[in-house]
Amino acid sequence: MRYTQTHIPTLREVPADAIIASHRLMFRAGLIRKLANGLFAYLPLGLRAFRKVEGIIREEMDAAGALEAKPTVVIPAELWKESGRWAAYGEALMRLRNRTGGDFVLSPTAEEAFTALLRDDLSSYRQLPLCLYQINTKYRDEIRPRYGVMRGREFIMKDAYSFHADEASLDATYRAMGAAYRRVFRRCALTVIPVQADSGAMGGSGSEEIMVESEIGDNTLLLCRACNYAANVEKASCMDEGQCLEGGGLPPRSGRASASSASPLSGGKILAHTLEKEHGFCATRKIQDENAQAFSSAPATPPPSPPMERIVTPNVKTIAELCAFLGTEAASFIKTLIYRVENAEALPNPRGGAAAPAPGAAFAAVCIRGDLDVNEVKLAALLKAAEVSLASEDDVTRLSGAPVGFAGPVGLESIPIICDNSVPTIPDAVTGALEKDLHYKHVVYGRDFSAALVADLRTVKAGDRCPLCGGELYEKKGNELGHIFKLGRKYSDSLRLSYLDEAGNAQTPLMGCYGIGLDRTLASVIEEHHDENGIIWPVSVAPYQVILVPVKYEGAAKDAADSLEAALTARGVEVLVDDREERPGVKFKDADLIGIPYRIVLGDKGLSQDPPQVELKRRAEKDARLIPLASAAEETARLVAADLAALRE
Amino acid sequence: MRYTQTHIPTLREVPADAIIASHRLMFRAGLIRKLANGLFAYLPLGLRAFRKVEGIIREEMDAAGALEAKPTVVIPAELWKESGRWAAYGEALMRLRNRTGGDFVLSPTAEEAFTALLRDDLSSYRQLPLCLYQINTKYRDEIRPRYGVMRGREFIMKDAYSFHADEASLDATYRAMGAAYRRVFRRCALTVIPVQADSGAMGGSGSEEIMVESEIGDNTLLLCRACNYAANVEKASCMDEGQCLEGGGLPPRSGRASASSASPLSGGKILAHTLEKEHGFCATRKIQDENAQAFSSAPATPPPSPPMERIVTPNVKTIAELCAFLGTEAASFIKTLIYRVENAEALPNPRGGAAAPAPGAAFAAVCIRGDLDVNEVKLAALLKAAEVSLASEDDVTRLSGAPVGFAGPVGLESIPIICDNSVPTIPDAVTGALEKDLHYKHVVYGRDFSAALVADLRTVKAGDRCPLCGGELYEKKGNELGHIFKLGRKYSDSLRLSYLDEAGNAQTPLMGCYGIGLDRTLASVIEEHHDENGIIWPVSVAPYQVILVPVKYEGAAKDAADSLEAALTARGVEVLVDDREERPGVKFKDADLIGIPYRIVLGDKGLSQDPPQVELKRRAEKDARLIPLASAAEETARLVAADLAALRE
Repeated sequence: MRYTQTHIPTLREVPADAIIASHRLMFRAGLIRKLANGLFAYLPLGLRAFRKVEGIIREEMDAAGALEAKPTVVIPAELWKESGRWAAYGEALMRLRNRTGGDFVLSPTAEEAFTALLRDDLSSYRQLPLCLYQINTKYRDEIRPRYGVMRGREFIMKDAYSFHADEASLDATYRAMGAAYRRVFRRCALTVIPVQADSGAMGGSGSEEIMVESEIGDNTLLLCRACNYAANVEKASCMDEGQCLEGGGLPPRSGRASASSASPLSGGKILAHTLEKEHGFCATRKIQDENAQAFSSAPATPPPSPPMERIVTPNVKTIAELCAFLGTEAASFIKTLIYRVENAEALPNPRGGAAAPAPGAAFAAVCIRGDLDVNEVKLAALLKAAEVSLASEDDVTRLSGAPVGFAGPVGLESIPIICDNSVPTIPDAVTGALEKDLHYKHVVYGRDFSAALVADLRTVKAGDRCPLCGGELYEKKGNELGHIFKLGRKYSDSLRLSYLDEAGNAQTPLMGCYGIGLDRTLASVIEEHHDENGIIWPVSVAPYQVILVPVKYEGAAKDAADSLEAALTARGVEVLVDDREERPGVKFKDADLIGIPYRIVLGDKGLSQDPPQVELKRRAEKDARLIPLASAAEETARLVAADLAALRE
Repeated sequence: MRYTQTHIPTLREVPADAIIASHRLMFRAGLIRKLANGLFAYLPLGLRAFRKVEGIIREEMDAAGALEAKPTVVIPAELWKESGRWAAYGEALMRLRNRTGGDFVLSPTAEEAFTALLRDDLSSYRQLPLCLYQINTKYRDEIRPRYGVMRGREFIMKDAYSFHADEASLDATYRAMGAAYRRVFRRCALTVIPVQADSGAMGGSGSEEIMVESEIGDNTLLLCRACNYAANVEKASCMDEGQCLEGGGLPPRSGRASASSASPLSGGKILAHTLEKEHGFCATRKIQDENAQAFSSAPATPPPSPPMERIVTPNVKTIAELCAFLGTEAASFIKTLIYRVENAEALPNPRGGAAAPAPGAAFAAVCIRGDLDVNEVKLAALLKAAEVSLASEDDVTRLSGAPVGFAGPVGLESIPIICDNSVPTIPDAVTGALEKDLHYKHVVYGRDFSAALVADLRTVKAGDRCPLCGGELYEKKGNELGHIFKLGRKYSDSLRLSYLDEAGNAQTPLMGCYGIGLDRTLASVIEEHHDENGIIWPVSVAPYQVILVPVKYEGAAKDAADSLEAALTARGVEVLVDDREERPGVKFKDADLIGIPYRIVLGDKGLSQDPPQVELKRRAEKDARLIPLASAAEETARLVAADLAALRE
């Protein structure tokens, strides 16, 4: 391709809102332009790189046995009403009404569409497993789109949906997709961090996000310095004093978070894990099956502790004030927060017994050790709630019988009490007493109160201990590029998808879903591969692999450029020839900016040598070297092929 | 690909609304499923064929020098307001409002987006010509979507937009696109009819549609039995008695319609055309430049005719009644119709003089010979009006001073009179007299009245005479697959796109636009290539080129099928292996239905021969023949390659 025949409007200036490197460089290199806030057009050079990412994803999906299909982007609202997401999705869902009054959505994802597609055509277990995917336009009506295509409103997503007769089949596809995703990102030369993720709001039992580290990432990741544990903060668990089963005799707790730390590549579930002595406790923790639900606690044997005592705490409301007043530490307090819970599918009964759906608004008291914070994503996932938020002051007063600051679990009977794992481990605690200016001390879990549910609800922070090995956790900011997810039967149930099993009985298939954001993947490649002069494309994603820069496109340099272009093209190498009438400095600057991996400069000086020489330079390296024109095509093609092969290793 | 690894849900039944062959077969062969009225999902087999069409279009666009880009599907309304189409487009435009109150459209076409994209980046004449295209989702909120993907609401269109410094450059790209379109359809094995099309509502000066004949086509085409003239009825012109210039001394008329009959492939404009004697007149007609506008008539020398006379015509309103009353023919009458005209950009002044914009509603009287019908598309194009429609009875009475049925041009001064070319050729006419129960006879154009504009406004019908050669025209119904269009400066003007010419002066580029509907092209391939048993794919579009049918997928047949698959795949042939446990009859029926071009049956009988034989059959032919297994891959690959080559000829 000749530079003068394409449209590569490089810029020196960038818009003020382009604050990250990929956004700046995609503008400057003429890859994208903004049509409106969150709406970006790909120009020809940008689209070529985009199509490379698309091609890699398609190849890996096909290789993994997924079949490409294409539903529409506009999906009838009826399907979203059947799944419940029409009501649940919120304002990021772009809804539209057509001229005949029909309601539709602009797909942000396509679980409903793919499930509905199979309703008429899935009949027998022999058709399963089945994995379908699309690479298609998606839309999210983001309130604050930013960072260029990294968080746009319209974007292209590869989304796959798999259907299975049993868990083993779902596991196999989930693992195959995890492996395919690692290959995709490897081929794109991206360093990714697979992390455990929340699977709550979507329903489902296993979930992994593939992240790239990013200073503007909207996810907080917890990583272990000692082992390969990695989790989104929404899901991250950690080891704490309550890890002792034998030692403390505490009630067993859900091990979901830790169990699902088994990554799809690591060879299956981790069923038991021996923990080192930590914080003075020695424990062997039995991590339970991934699908185990958190359950009610049984009363525990009370530890030796004085009887509970009521204390007057005038004008003391916050934990800090209480610490100062009592001369103790926050870790000795039980913090009790009243939450408003929307449309919970599994809210425990205040008096114990099985959890039940609670349509509309309900309330729950959440207790956690005073120095810890409640993770609301974990809470929502536990209760299978559409949304959880702190209750209003009025609601707190009505439900706790006291002003804000004096809630506590002892004697609280109107709403269910849910305790973080940390609570039963406090041997001698202080709590609010459900009356103004009163607290209890010497409170013991299991003796003075108990919870309807005990589960992992804490927000893990840097410095906490790895739940697998006890190593120190640290934090990173990450951007999600891909997500694989065991959906269970949420959609197949609600959309009534079924098949006949071998015995002729109707069954509801299990489902998985698997997404990759293409725009964000492309932008992340630039984030990871650039310098102060521009993009440094990996050959696999580069819009062109080689740029030929004749110092002047005339005479011997023109002839050499033309024949070298032909020779490279014949070898399957993608070539851009800078045939512009520009000064060499301008051409070099643009070549660096648009980041073509290999640059070959053809000048009269080199070409007049015997044999004629050209200058070959990798974009990623500082120095160029002279190579004979005669072997330039062969050598460059070999380098390109080697780079591509290395990215497949 | 193994049949059991894909998802090809063939059906015996079809939905009741599937009344055309392609719609029925796309359902039955498992290519598409319906998500809602006008919204169709492509299943894997359908998408493979669809991607073939997409690939052919992309190749031909790239070969023609067009550059692929990708704006968003959701486009900000601001751009459509700038172009005026936000107000003008009507209800088929799907409009949406986002959560922050912004208005957007779901693109039905993308003139605005591409023009806007270049505003910041087009600076110099040296960047021109530039042709950008996308292959992307489009949406039209059709009131009555039908015929499957032939007229869906959401569809994929290839739309290209070109930008030029002068007419010659626009002409060259317009011709190149016309040639590329012919190659695209040829490669898809489609028999197409390129026809002249209306270019009115979009603004612009040249327009050609590529049609396929179809019984459910929504276009009427006029074709000449003698030459290659072909036009959409919206645009078709014909030869009539008024063709005589020298002979009759009539005013010259616009030759736009005939001039643009020069097809992009025919080598340029036809500047003069000698016409045969026709209807007793002998004429040489000077066909004018394509860009000439219709213009006011000059008074003509009156032919020998008695003076105009008022006649009483009690209870006579229709032309038929008048014919009976006067004992004459409809061709002797001047029919006068009052039209309401919306937002005309070029409405003539009733008293002559230059045409001027008439925002909002205006009126015009249109006169035409009594046996002919007014073509409202031509009228709208002539006046550059958003819409034209017959005026209400009240408006007719108010403007003509008489009840409906008595309008006429003589003495009508309140609104402009526009005459079809047929009117000045009536030597002695009858017209309404602007009073109840009164008509004029012996009316002569130029003596008794004249028009502000004389132009071709008639609806051409089968049996009319070809405007090029005088041959007989006949009609076909057609479906539009592609459209190439000279836009002029409509969008570059309204969206303020400019560049600096060689002298440094700001100029507004000319534009062209060029569209192909992919879904409709695919459906048309099936319309043209099927029989009672199913689809008969041309190899270029086939989802797989060869289907291997082992009678039983086991033993020698399985081994032979596996090795033949590998050998064909190695030769670049796309193979589907029917590895299902089904009776051969079921496999053969499905193979015919899904229409794979070559079928190879592997049975124990043939394979046990020495040397082993397999049965090769073209889907398009009745008979199979035995070929040696050993050479089957080579021979089949050769046939596939030959078919592909033939479609490129």
